[in-house]
Amino acid sequence: MAAVALVQGASRGLGLEFCKHILSYKAPAAVVATCRNPEGAMDLAALAAQHPGRVTVLKVDVTREDDIKGAAEVVKKSFGKVDLMINSSAMLHPTGKGETSLRDISAEGIISTLITNTVGPLVMAKYFTPLLQRGNGLFGHQSPEKAKQHSGIIVNITARVGSIGDNALGGWYSYRMSKAALNMATRNLSIELGRSRPKVLCVSMHPGTINTDLSRPYHKSVPKDKLFTTQHSVEHLMAVIESLNIEKSGKAYAWDGSELPW
Amino acid sequence: MAAVALVQGASRGLGLEFCKHILSYKAPAAVVATCRNPEGAMDLAALAAQHPGRVTVLKVDVTREDDIKGAAEVVKKSFGKVDLMINSSAMLHPTGKGETSLRDISAEGIISTLITNTVGPLVMAKYFTPLLQRGNGLFGHQSPEKAKQHSGIIVNITARVGSIGDNALGGWYSYRMSKAALNMATRNLSIELGRSRPKVLCVSMHPGTINTDLSRPYHKSVPKDKLFTTQHSVEHLMAVIESLNIEKSGKAYAWDGSELPW
Repeated sequence: MAAVALVQGASRGLGLEFCKHILSYKAPAAVVATCRNPEGAMDLAALAAQHPGRVTVLKVDVTREDDIKGAAEVVKKSFGKVDLMINSSAMLHPTGKGETSLRDISAEGIISTLITNTVGPLVMAKYFTPLLQRGNGLFGHQSPEKAKQHSGIIVNITARVGSIGDNALGGWYSYRMSKAALNMATRNLSIELGRSRPKVLCVSMHPGTINTDLSRPYHKSVPKDKLFTTQHSVEHLMAVIESLNIEKSGKAYAWDGSELPW
Repeated sequence: MAAVALVQGASRGLGLEFCKHILSYKAPAAVVATCRNPEGAMDLAALAAQHPGRVTVLKVDVTREDDIKGAAEVVKKSFGKVDLMINSSAMLHPTGKGETSLRDISAEGIISTLITNTVGPLVMAKYFTPLLQRGNGLFGHQSPEKAKQHSGIIVNITARVGSIGDNALGGWYSYRMSKAALNMATRNLSIELGRSRPKVLCVSMHPGTINTDLSRPYHKSVPKDKLFTTQHSVEHLMAVIESLNIEKSGKAYAWDGSELPW
């Protein structure tokens, strides 16, 4: 029984790299790669061509509940289960620039960021949980105790700036708020899905500062050894994911496995 | 120079009680009371009649940025400043019932809750901050050191269930997420407005479990001595507000002054 991993936001950046990494280290795992615009996702198409029969690309705009519902139906028919779901896509702000002060905020900007970064991942969890509950627990560190075993894992990609306790600089209102709310969703999911049997784990993860469109304008302030390639980040994140068990569910972890404050 | 307090969500419950309490203990303070539907706010109209010339009722639906902007213009013309702003209104969920499981969540429900509970208070802060920066610091505990003095205070009413770290039961997805994001807004505001001079303080506050429409369906599980009247809750909250200074800004406090985890 091959593992099935679903990566949401897979057309580029961290999401694309998760697909690449899982295909190479976890053969014969199947990857379900979702993105808003499959026709424009050339790198993803190339990756799928390199791994015939192992990549299913589905169109999902996380702001459209019907897209998510439809994708879950397709995955159910094709695979009947999911072992790992990674909610990867996020926006800094619809303008592309995080708010540096209160003057920059607008109701529209905050709402739009919350819809993509927070509501999207939770609606994904709603529709894919039944499939994660049918997973074979092929990611993470499976407990020998039956009562502690898990069938699936949900990873919500958060960011250190989504930590309220760690926030010393301010700014980026919409992005920070969306990730704080996502961390609450993670916590809630871990509680609800940790009660059921089989259990589904849920964690938030901070990938470090990586070279993506989202973070590029802010690299000047990051020391060079802390500015990761997506490859470096994903290798570390996957190592943490493969170490997860029920005791580690419901928390936020950085790329190096350290726990982040809420 | 009389104190000016603005209470958003003042037609009933906690907001109405804040108005009553401030009018009685802090005479000759003026109260600006905002609510969605002033024509239907009979208790507020009665309160205004009891305190001639001290209560200004303004129509503000926090989901309408224009309402907020317009109200700030009126307050600017009438008073030129605000010393205390309390963001009090909130909804549990548009259906009136918090989600008990993932099955109950909908994108619309989460978004609508976020718009009222999270975006509204932040947009209030955007438009009223210039007035709070012209306040005379007539609420809170003023520091004798000039550099630490504050001109105004923003209080965002949160709830213990908005604490991610304190969350052991799960459920209530929309409400919990909206309050976690509001706590991040509080933190961000405290940082940005603590840098400027004069300083504006910002805190989140948990009123305890009180007898309001929002919490009534859930009272069975609350011990009797922990089920407060709005009067009891507001007396305690005001005592905490009057003890605030710059060192206490940027945190979440319960009714008894204890700090809540994020």
